[in-house]
Amino acid sequence: MTTSETIHDEDVRITLIGAGTIGLSFAALHLSHLRDASRLTIFDTRDDLASYIKLATSLPSAVGKATIIQEQGPENAAFKTAIWAEIEEHAPEDALFWSSTSGIPASVQSQKMKDASRLLVVHPYNPPHIMPLLEVVPSPSTSDAVVERTVSFWRARGRTPVVVKKECTGFVANRLAFALLRESIHLVRSGVVTVEELDRIVETSMGPRWAVAGPFKSYHAGGGAGGLEAFMKNIGGTVQACWDDLGDVRVGEGQGWEEDIYAQTREAYGVVDTGLRDRTTKRVLEVVEEEKSKG
Amino acid sequence: MTTSETIHDEDVRITLIGAGTIGLSFAALHLSHLRDASRLTIFDTRDDLASYIKLATSLPSAVGKATIIQEQGPENAAFKTAIWAEIEEHAPEDALFWSSTSGIPASVQSQKMKDASRLLVVHPYNPPHIMPLLEVVPSPSTSDAVVERTVSFWRARGRTPVVVKKECTGFVANRLAFALLRESIHLVRSGVVTVEELDRIVETSMGPRWAVAGPFKSYHAGGGAGGLEAFMKNIGGTVQACWDDLGDVRVGEGQGWEEDIYAQTREAYGVVDTGLRDRTTKRVLEVVEEEKSKG
Repeated sequence: MTTSETIHDEDVRITLIGAGTIGLSFAALHLSHLRDASRLTIFDTRDDLASYIKLATSLPSAVGKATIIQEQGPENAAFKTAIWAEIEEHAPEDALFWSSTSGIPASVQSQKMKDASRLLVVHPYNPPHIMPLLEVVPSPSTSDAVVERTVSFWRARGRTPVVVKKECTGFVANRLAFALLRESIHLVRSGVVTVEELDRIVETSMGPRWAVAGPFKSYHAGGGAGGLEAFMKNIGGTVQACWDDLGDVRVGEGQGWEEDIYAQTREAYGVVDTGLRDRTTKRVLEVVEEEKSKG
Repeated sequence: MTTSETIHDEDVRITLIGAGTIGLSFAALHLSHLRDASRLTIFDTRDDLASYIKLATSLPSAVGKATIIQEQGPENAAFKTAIWAEIEEHAPEDALFWSSTSGIPASVQSQKMKDASRLLVVHPYNPPHIMPLLEVVPSPSTSDAVVERTVSFWRARGRTPVVVKKECTGFVANRLAFALLRESIHLVRSGVVTVEELDRIVETSMGPRWAVAGPFKSYHAGGGAGGLEAFMKNIGGTVQACWDDLGDVRVGEGQGWEEDIYAQTREAYGVVDTGLRDRTTKRVLEVVEEEKSKG
């Protein structure tokens, strides 16, 4: 295969390293595209998984014929660094190496590899079989060809890969979501709203708005003919006042917000019906695509 | 009318103070509920508006028979403080006083009123005729009865009023959205992604997610049986690392990010088709309600 070629479904043999929540969700996604289940191999050392899914427990046989090897093992730099060096020994020369990590960059994971240009991060948004986004995060060593083959693989399957140009803590989606989470915790801790009220606010305002148009596009529309620049001229004072007043919250026991917020969340939601959530999310994504294609 | 009574459509006479974008959008919303257009009065001193909408230019006649007076004039404390004192002179005794301000709390606006218990903020999310959310923000002087009548008015009309228990800068929705905007600007300024890529990331991940379940509910689901507490135990390290690394951005000319980000936004979007945006947003809200009612 030359590096510029698209990977066709008939050629794909995917090996998933790690069969936790993310791994199994990726398995569901790949199985909806692959010609037959024998083209998907899952490597996991936990024996108890073998009862409900076909597993490889020998790494060389798991990766020996793969065209894509996708890792979602423990979030532990030592584990990832070691396993990629081993995978590299046994995988075909042109196989793509993807890590689903949410925090350990490819430049760290590839440290014991002979050829670091083959590895990059392909970070999904949970759950991967529903959410279109894949953050594609190369290290400075990753080759352009590997980035291109990765992006075209996902585009051809109707997903939304976005290349993150610099490795940074948490990549993009989590950084943004956690910035909003921090202020959410601050406002509940300050007694301004409850956990459930805060969620209702997001669900009935910026959630539906951002499903349709991201923050820049939204505020650009909000500024009328003058766009984002006019918006910031009009309301920049309020924006800065809010930024100056953002709460400082920390993670960890004894910070004073955990017990109350965990309790409020449990009482409000019990165990969330993720089936309902996923069905609804799918329909939201469908109507956005439908209206977009109408123009 | 006793304070506990619901306001029925046949009794409502609404006066809007100010006919800018927000005022006209509220006018569209009210007209979809009111029995006839004569029950809606708009007060604005600009003569050029009279060509397309029925306007009152004398305040006493505009508010004299109103059951609700809703203000969306200039974001200027002196203007609002003065006009509420004048409105109070001429409005019926039990009329509700609502300000659509995004930044000037009722405790400031009511300073020259004889009876500050009548005024509160009813802050919409733009555009009000589409977005279900209304942030209801009483001052410490606002009476419970006024809050209750306001909430029940909006509930009866299928909207989502949420009472914000303490006056704070930007209330809740804008604070949350601006926290995410700040980090968005930082990531574009740092060359991690472009304006358009950042929007695509939000549109294909947290936008659709939060349209269905707010941040607390989402992360509570993300933690499985252990809920939000388990989620924070698993991934709290990454959350804190992201919080520690959030960018510090300021509003105002000469900050170094404006020119490039405004230019990128203009090039990416030109003038946004708000008709398409609003149609799509409506459908997103509809499918969420539909799935919710199926259970």
